[in-house]
Amino acid sequence: MKSTKNSLSEKLIINRYLKKLNFKNKGTFNFENDGAYLDLISKNYKLTVTTDHISEDIDFFSNDDPKSIAQKITTVNLSDIFAMGAVPHSYLLNLHLPNYINENWLNSFSNQLKKIQNKYGFYLLGGDLSKSNKLIVSSTFFGSIKKKLEIFQNKFNLYDDILITGNIGESKIGLEILKKKISSNINLNQYFIKKYLYPIPCKLGPLIANHVNSMKDISDGLIGDLTDMLNDKYGALINVNTIPLSVKTKIILNNKNNFRLEDLLNAGDDYGLIIISSQKNRNKIFNIANKNNVKISCVGKIINEKGIYFDSHLDMKNMKKFDHFS
Amino acid sequence: MKSTKNSLSEKLIINRYLKKLNFKNKGTFNFENDGAYLDLISKNYKLTVTTDHISEDIDFFSNDDPKSIAQKITTVNLSDIFAMGAVPHSYLLNLHLPNYINENWLNSFSNQLKKIQNKYGFYLLGGDLSKSNKLIVSSTFFGSIKKKLEIFQNKFNLYDDILITGNIGESKIGLEILKKKISSNINLNQYFIKKYLYPIPCKLGPLIANHVNSMKDISDGLIGDLTDMLNDKYGALINVNTIPLSVKTKIILNNKNNFRLEDLLNAGDDYGLIIISSQKNRNKIFNIANKNNVKISCVGKIINEKGIYFDSHLDMKNMKKFDHFS
Repeated sequence: MKSTKNSLSEKLIINRYLKKLNFKNKGTFNFENDGAYLDLISKNYKLTVTTDHISEDIDFFSNDDPKSIAQKITTVNLSDIFAMGAVPHSYLLNLHLPNYINENWLNSFSNQLKKIQNKYGFYLLGGDLSKSNKLIVSSTFFGSIKKKLEIFQNKFNLYDDILITGNIGESKIGLEILKKKISSNINLNQYFIKKYLYPIPCKLGPLIANHVNSMKDISDGLIGDLTDMLNDKYGALINVNTIPLSVKTKIILNNKNNFRLEDLLNAGDDYGLIIISSQKNRNKIFNIANKNNVKISCVGKIINEKGIYFDSHLDMKNMKKFDHFS
Repeated sequence: MKSTKNSLSEKLIINRYLKKLNFKNKGTFNFENDGAYLDLISKNYKLTVTTDHISEDIDFFSNDDPKSIAQKITTVNLSDIFAMGAVPHSYLLNLHLPNYINENWLNSFSNQLKKIQNKYGFYLLGGDLSKSNKLIVSSTFFGSIKKKLEIFQNKFNLYDDILITGNIGESKIGLEILKKKISSNINLNQYFIKKYLYPIPCKLGPLIANHVNSMKDISDGLIGDLTDMLNDKYGALINVNTIPLSVKTKIILNNKNNFRLEDLLNAGDDYGLIIISSQKNRNKIFNIANKNNVKISCVGKIINEKGIYFDSHLDMKNMKKFDHFS
């Protein structure tokens, strides 16, 4: 906890930027204890837990706005919590900070976290700080869900619907624009860059949890995440025309950008949900989605043949799975 | 999940080295889900949570035995769980892996984790993998504790006892030997190096939780951790002659090593407990410690004057707090 003129002390970071995120919850460490008590779950609810991280030069650029980094670390985790059918409860934050992090950065980062916490109703339990040569933000999120509910990623039946929320590929197009690999007019550029920098988790999960068999968020791309769900047991038949694309994305695909639908099917970081559910629940799920202003599309069904099949020709050779680890 | 000849795939690491640590527990992600359900806590127990990390070049050297790294990441976290009066339940493991990590490393690392899990009875819930240029191992541990119990680090009374388990400074001496700053005979060198490489958490916490006011593990050194506990509200009067030192440590202090008691009072990573408790419970606590073969010493008491005072002259100028963050 020693502080020098040139570097931020642990105590200063905690007191000035992190304590406010605790929202004065009782039983938590409030950064004065080494641990927290989680006794806020009633006997009808159980806890869900997920952990995910984002790293400089892999998931963001070092000069990215700290608000974007706050948005990304919460979205990658909230997205998992929602996909489990749970609502967010609290989280731990592990910051591995390089020397370039200053108080302006921390101020902007923590204010964005506070805004997101207020939006979804969860608080910071505590965490851990360290120095690092690259910025790594790692977080463990807790959610609460009714005791009887349990949504696994690969428990479903033959001929179940495959549903997708939101649109595919917008974050990826934003990244390609930032990398100057494709370009469009300034409005479209800004639209897609925002999709890449400020991804939003799909809150539908807990609202439809009673009516689905499996859910997973699309973090590694539609093909990659669907492959994980199929788990080498079943296959999927996808109706290409129903894959949800925004009008703006169609403009990009129609431009001479050398960028095709195939490139978007493995595009990560859209954070919509893949939902696998019985056909008989389709209307119920669509109604709930519509009521909550969430775009939802039925893109295919579970089949017996292992693998992912498309009803029209797609060049799969160019499909590479997005992999945070490589 | 793509795999090349030269690098380990995420899937291979999970299947070959991490799945075995899950101990086939139901409701956990078993690395196939993005999250886990924690419904194993009965209505009489609540969950405690703590998170801590260790980093290459700060908490260990890159060529350290992976068994030592496994020992350290579990001890830093178990130590916090025990200090909260809880028993370990499960954990999440976040591995940020540089390229030099190979299958031998993972094999040795995961086998040591398995051994420690078996010893204390907890299992791996899941986690997160990423590439990094330095090795960072980060972990979130869950413990369970009776609903009524709550041990905070800074809730105690004037004139309470200050107790310490184990001996002070042995890990630090091991580190100084490894850095070739001090040396002794080969037996002593090996003894202290082992204390540094394989620290062991003090399991006494949950056994005495009913009889104490506050507990904290000594991870940043006696002075630093006690200062955190005092939290600028009370002070501590320490009886220097009662500070627990092993016979071997006294040999080092008596050598011409230019190494003094003062240097050990801020030595981190011993992972004994500082216990603050009412004088009337002293015998009870000592009896439980003795029954469990845990060395325990009463080193002082809580006083009204803020700060830490010693009953004999110590040169405090040279005391620098051990700080993982600096």
